[in-house]
Amino acid sequence: MSETFYIVPQEQHDTLVAQAYQHRGYTADEAAQAARFSAFASHHGIRTHNAIKALHLDHLFGSAAGGCAPAAEIEKVESRFAASETWNANKKLGQATAYEAIDTAMALADKYGIGQVSVDNAFHYLWGGGYVMEAAKKGYIAYTNCTAALAEVVPFMGKFPTLGTNPHSWGFPTTDAVGFPIVIDWATSVIAMGRVQQFLREGTALPPNAAVDKDGKPTTDAKEVAALMPFGAHKGYGLSLINEIVGAFIGGSLPTLRSRQAPEGEKRTPAFYFQVIHPDAINGGAFAKGRNQAENVKAVIEDILGHGNENCLLPGQIEAKWAERVVKAGGLLFSKAEIEAFNEIAEECGAPTWELGSFPTEA
Amino acid sequence: MSETFYIVPQEQHDTLVAQAYQHRGYTADEAAQAARFSAFASHHGIRTHNAIKALHLDHLFGSAAGGCAPAAEIEKVESRFAASETWNANKKLGQATAYEAIDTAMALADKYGIGQVSVDNAFHYLWGGGYVMEAAKKGYIAYTNCTAALAEVVPFMGKFPTLGTNPHSWGFPTTDAVGFPIVIDWATSVIAMGRVQQFLREGTALPPNAAVDKDGKPTTDAKEVAALMPFGAHKGYGLSLINEIVGAFIGGSLPTLRSRQAPEGEKRTPAFYFQVIHPDAINGGAFAKGRNQAENVKAVIEDILGHGNENCLLPGQIEAKWAERVVKAGGLLFSKAEIEAFNEIAEECGAPTWELGSFPTEA
Repeated sequence: MSETFYIVPQEQHDTLVAQAYQHRGYTADEAAQAARFSAFASHHGIRTHNAIKALHLDHLFGSAAGGCAPAAEIEKVESRFAASETWNANKKLGQATAYEAIDTAMALADKYGIGQVSVDNAFHYLWGGGYVMEAAKKGYIAYTNCTAALAEVVPFMGKFPTLGTNPHSWGFPTTDAVGFPIVIDWATSVIAMGRVQQFLREGTALPPNAAVDKDGKPTTDAKEVAALMPFGAHKGYGLSLINEIVGAFIGGSLPTLRSRQAPEGEKRTPAFYFQVIHPDAINGGAFAKGRNQAENVKAVIEDILGHGNENCLLPGQIEAKWAERVVKAGGLLFSKAEIEAFNEIAEECGAPTWELGSFPTEA
Repeated sequence: MSETFYIVPQEQHDTLVAQAYQHRGYTADEAAQAARFSAFASHHGIRTHNAIKALHLDHLFGSAAGGCAPAAEIEKVESRFAASETWNANKKLGQATAYEAIDTAMALADKYGIGQVSVDNAFHYLWGGGYVMEAAKKGYIAYTNCTAALAEVVPFMGKFPTLGTNPHSWGFPTTDAVGFPIVIDWATSVIAMGRVQQFLREGTALPPNAAVDKDGKPTTDAKEVAALMPFGAHKGYGLSLINEIVGAFIGGSLPTLRSRQAPEGEKRTPAFYFQVIHPDAINGGAFAKGRNQAENVKAVIEDILGHGNENCLLPGQIEAKWAERVVKAGGLLFSKAEIEAFNEIAEECGAPTWELGSFPTEA
């Protein structure tokens, strides 16, 4: 019953992805960042945001639709605040922008204990969890949010979708404590619109309170779905609002115009927000029983997952397990359908296609 | 059917509350901060965290139980990070500590665009929303979280309560945009333990997925409740974990020992985390249609609450409405039962009791 995965050398993946981005007009550097990020996503089993999805989104909203501008240059806005930067990304590729932003926020945190980078005129960065996970692996506490491409979610008690699926991502440097970074990373809707289409294809019912019909009434019938609901009633609504408000302070567009045709003078771009904290800057130094900081974090997590909770998972654990499989296999793991999708990408950009039989399968 | 509220002059409230705190050994300054904060809570209709609750918590966990130390001095830990402070509160009164922390974070944000204050060995600050609301009224974006007094919540898929109800509070300076600060402020459990006791008294069923029995199975029977569940399944669990992890980095105790008898050498104190952002430090300056920042925030919120969503509420709106009633009445609004509770407080500290008939009622 379990899916068969083919082992694709990362270099082969990266070469194809970079060539596909360059074919669409991106610079060699942008293409390399896009390939690096896709490889990182696939390394951690993020199948919803791998290279296939990234190139598909670029087609729908990005370089083919004017939402993303290959070879764009980031402009840094003059600021009187030492621990803060604000950028105009000029619709530069999201992955390249986000990598530079999180690197900058880490450098600010090294100096000030905390640093933030706000990005206006951004383009989809795909998987916020990836940037905070990388920062967490380097020893930082990291956070990012963004306004999602489309307004697909109704406010709590509302009828019409005026909020993005607006994700939040937090990463914690817990490798010493539990063996991997804890990464809390999710959208503020119960499910994504892609899942609704899956329920539609499969003819199964949605979970309750995940979507509404055209009158704003909750429905579990995928055929009736007009918009999504925030998770956790007013609490998820509040979390989704945070991204819109932060985006609005930065310079974001009206949510219902985002990634759509906007009237003259209105913007249609998302915004990003990044924040990094150096763990030394929140270290009170007075841990019980002579523990150091990492030992205290380990003791707290062991307490949480003790007392009969031993089977609970930590956020980031599934991704860490997938990464172990990838390391063991010696290459990224893709299904037959995914390899076929890579071959469509290869055909688009004139790269050699992949021969399914050339890849060993996972034992 | 609507409850009758008696109008109590704020000065009369503050005098009694300060006297009650001084009677318990707190300094005049601490007592004044406690009275100020209770008045602010009651001004905004926060009936679950007014002076009555504050003094009750102080009795259960605070000055009477060794969890809070009247007249304690905050020690500031040496730090190499300019935008960050870490404090040992030495169990100082939570309200006094939190006011000083948020003031410090605002001063850091003035200089660096963002600032953080982490507090070890803290005591219950009651209502995180109050501190971020005050900061938001002064024009700042503010955030706080803390580890809650008791571990009452099971991890997602867990059986045993090892997490606090761990609240998060965000405040945004949106008074120019919508007339009041948007304040997103809630615990990470579906309901509080106090609500379970209310369901028990009333003999009514809990909402689904709010609590578990002794075997960790979800129950709606208040008599069977052994622990609470996080809201939004794995998402609320992640949000609750954030407070425990941040607390653990600061110096926090093991959650199951918090506010309880702890073995020799272990701590039993909560931790606080405060963060303030200056809105100028995230201003990209490139708003559509020549809007300024506040106008852009207003336009985004109008878009969210338009299109048929006009009856949706913003977080903080109910509190702002209550504040309007208080201003109109010219005093804080308390029920008969609340005034009786204040009279018990008066008797404890030897202050004059309040005569119900001396207060006008709200029109």
